[in-house]
Amino acid sequence: MTASNSAPMIITGATVLTQTTRPAPGYPSLPSDDRAARGSVEFLENHAIGIRGDAIEWIKPTAEVTPAELAGAEIIDGRGKVAIPGMMNSHTHSPMTMFRGSAEDVPTHSWFNEHIWPMEVNLTERDVRLGAELAVGEMLLAGVTSFADHYFATDQIAEVVARSGARAMLASTFFSSQGQAGVESSAAFAEKWNGAAGGRITTAMGPHATYTVDDADLRTTAEHARRLGIRTHIHAAESLSQTESSLAKRGVTPIQVLHDTGILETGALIAHGAGIIEDDLRWLTPYADRVAVGSCTKVYMKHAQSGGTPVRMLHDAGITVGVGTDGPASHNTLDMLESLRLLSLAEKNHHSDATWLTSAHALDLLTRQSADLFGQGHMLGKLLPGYRADIVLIDTRKPHMQPMHDLAAALVLSVKSSDVSTVVVDGQVVVRDGVLTTLDLDPVIDELNSRIPQLTDLSHGRSIQDYQP
Amino acid sequence: MTASNSAPMIITGATVLTQTTRPAPGYPSLPSDDRAARGSVEFLENHAIGIRGDAIEWIKPTAEVTPAELAGAEIIDGRGKVAIPGMMNSHTHSPMTMFRGSAEDVPTHSWFNEHIWPMEVNLTERDVRLGAELAVGEMLLAGVTSFADHYFATDQIAEVVARSGARAMLASTFFSSQGQAGVESSAAFAEKWNGAAGGRITTAMGPHATYTVDDADLRTTAEHARRLGIRTHIHAAESLSQTESSLAKRGVTPIQVLHDTGILETGALIAHGAGIIEDDLRWLTPYADRVAVGSCTKVYMKHAQSGGTPVRMLHDAGITVGVGTDGPASHNTLDMLESLRLLSLAEKNHHSDATWLTSAHALDLLTRQSADLFGQGHMLGKLLPGYRADIVLIDTRKPHMQPMHDLAAALVLSVKSSDVSTVVVDGQVVVRDGVLTTLDLDPVIDELNSRIPQLTDLSHGRSIQDYQP
Repeated sequence: MTASNSAPMIITGATVLTQTTRPAPGYPSLPSDDRAARGSVEFLENHAIGIRGDAIEWIKPTAEVTPAELAGAEIIDGRGKVAIPGMMNSHTHSPMTMFRGSAEDVPTHSWFNEHIWPMEVNLTERDVRLGAELAVGEMLLAGVTSFADHYFATDQIAEVVARSGARAMLASTFFSSQGQAGVESSAAFAEKWNGAAGGRITTAMGPHATYTVDDADLRTTAEHARRLGIRTHIHAAESLSQTESSLAKRGVTPIQVLHDTGILETGALIAHGAGIIEDDLRWLTPYADRVAVGSCTKVYMKHAQSGGTPVRMLHDAGITVGVGTDGPASHNTLDMLESLRLLSLAEKNHHSDATWLTSAHALDLLTRQSADLFGQGHMLGKLLPGYRADIVLIDTRKPHMQPMHDLAAALVLSVKSSDVSTVVVDGQVVVRDGVLTTLDLDPVIDELNSRIPQLTDLSHGRSIQDYQP
Repeated sequence: MTASNSAPMIITGATVLTQTTRPAPGYPSLPSDDRAARGSVEFLENHAIGIRGDAIEWIKPTAEVTPAELAGAEIIDGRGKVAIPGMMNSHTHSPMTMFRGSAEDVPTHSWFNEHIWPMEVNLTERDVRLGAELAVGEMLLAGVTSFADHYFATDQIAEVVARSGARAMLASTFFSSQGQAGVESSAAFAEKWNGAAGGRITTAMGPHATYTVDDADLRTTAEHARRLGIRTHIHAAESLSQTESSLAKRGVTPIQVLHDTGILETGALIAHGAGIIEDDLRWLTPYADRVAVGSCTKVYMKHAQSGGTPVRMLHDAGITVGVGTDGPASHNTLDMLESLRLLSLAEKNHHSDATWLTSAHALDLLTRQSADLFGQGHMLGKLLPGYRADIVLIDTRKPHMQPMHDLAAALVLSVKSSDVSTVVVDGQVVVRDGVLTTLDLDPVIDELNSRIPQLTDLSHGRSIQDYQP
């Protein structure tokens, strides 16, 4: 064995989160325990991860790493840290960092019609670029290595992703009010960028919602998706009242609209889905291998929606649920650990069942299921040989995580995203000891602050769209 | 003016949170806006805070600070930071850091009867000391400068508080199952330590709950409280089912029990109060100047309780509500900013009203009302000349807080407790640039981890108490 045969980068001494179908050790048997059914997590103590190029080459006990392997490699000290798969934000509008805190304490209709959509009239491509840069930096610092994005001026976002070393699945938003140009530009963006940045950038079609894009455009969307071999990312059944409104207006639920227009068949990332009803399962389950729902609990609570994504019903039906933040203008952060904690707490509370959605199950949503939502469960969301080296080290020695009775609970209920110390994407260190290696956010923050008067100006009296779901 | 006349410590260039009865600038008028009624917050940009001894001497624009004042003082650079009053944790059991993560995904009765109360049989005084030391360190790092504590072996906690530079209101827990010795030892502790550590330590009487302490002991508690001029800290009406159970068993609510036994008259900190019903207001409102409720939302959600503290009803009745974490064995952290965010989100959601409990109002709960709960609103909870110098600097330049449209929203919905950079208590810097100056937690964490097998041993088959509320 020579140094040239060893992995160029080795993380040593870490506790490694890995997936298993066995119950996590030390957990009591619980009435609603489903970890064996849907997969769960296990922790390997004092293990090392060998990374070659963009992939994980091996994972083994640190004691089995040879001096020759260590000699030829860049060593990252993982002692006192847990290694988890890079977190994948299942739904966001990343550039909306620019509007963080600009529309507070208002219900959804006011948020859209009186604040956000009128302000979006003011956007320049430069604003989108700055907003995306701040967002990607914020996400990488918090261990979020990929995100399913849905916004305008997506060329700007793609360039930021390429330069930052992050990963993303980008969708260019369109409304039918734009005419045929909307869907065509979304498809043109998807075709141009899919597979770019060494595969770190993938794309999806980006119809805004079932109430802002008509059926003809949705059918065209599905045709493009089939042609390009990509999924569609769309807001649908965002609340029960939206589903009721759709039934009243046209006799079908938003999910049936997605079925009837071919969106489900070509694969869909459904944002929110809080209005998915039991009857919708007949449309969703035939496509359980390519349809998933992104859940963003904080936003449902903040906007005082009754109920969030029906995680338990979807779980029982075998539908993948990913964890997302939604845009930072509603979620106020891009922190997946915050989003996961809220989902966990809200689910227990909603079902009046403290045994439902264990921390181990929550971690499965965060890692494996969120990767499945991107259609990338074969290469991301797990720490296994052959998988992409998207790895986050979290410092578990922080006072608020100690003493350590239960690592799964610590990662769901005690952790702060500031405990993320090192982040690797595609084998590249993008955050080292809490510092970004690829982006300088200071000038971005300054420029965005200087733009606030223009961004929030409503004197034009216009809006990019009307919210009447 | 000479240097010797200037404040020995000056924080310069900070944005200072201050209380006001005027609506916060820049906020829209909202239908349920109550900021003018109950007080709110305002921010003074680029101000300096002069500190002499344990108190704030003056607050004024940084530009008005003279070179002579600066020359004689220790300068803390507050640029890019917001100064808020030290946070006061309205209800906790601090040493239970030792059990953090040891009883997860279980409902309340199992948490008590199968996990926590059997494990507490194993406690030594040393465990309590270690648990308290970790807790106080964790809290100071998170900007929590004081806490209303309720636990056993409280001499140990008091010694930790004295040494750490923190502030606390300590109550020694007792059950009537201990006989007369319970209430008497709680009173003896309260008498011994009230006013200790230069006034940083105050005390309260500590009956566990209305279902574990009988009326005779509660009357004795009230007598001691009156004699000592202190309040009583007690779990009461923790859930609606507890209130129903009390009504069924004895025809009175837990709150009426507190009234009838004289606890309300002498002043009470009611932990949780999620079972307070409208009819209870007639008992509470006559003592609105000395009765308050500590709310710990995360625990209600995690333990799948239906509903939390009725914040809106209490608010409308003029009853003070403080923000707390409960013990870290149920809350998993001692993070008040997390607790505040959850309270804010849960309140909006519970009332289906996104305009209710604005971020400005939430900050009022965090600062002024939490200090009122301690009975210390005249000296803490506000940044004003003459008030104690308990001050937390929060770094608002972090990417997840930017750009800055709305500082109140940023402090409630974007901030992480890791953004706390510097913490001053009673004029002493206890955290500087994120590092504790008075405690070394590493050996504490190591020793607590080594104690886990003994702490979690249930082979004795005993319990400190039976949970049958």
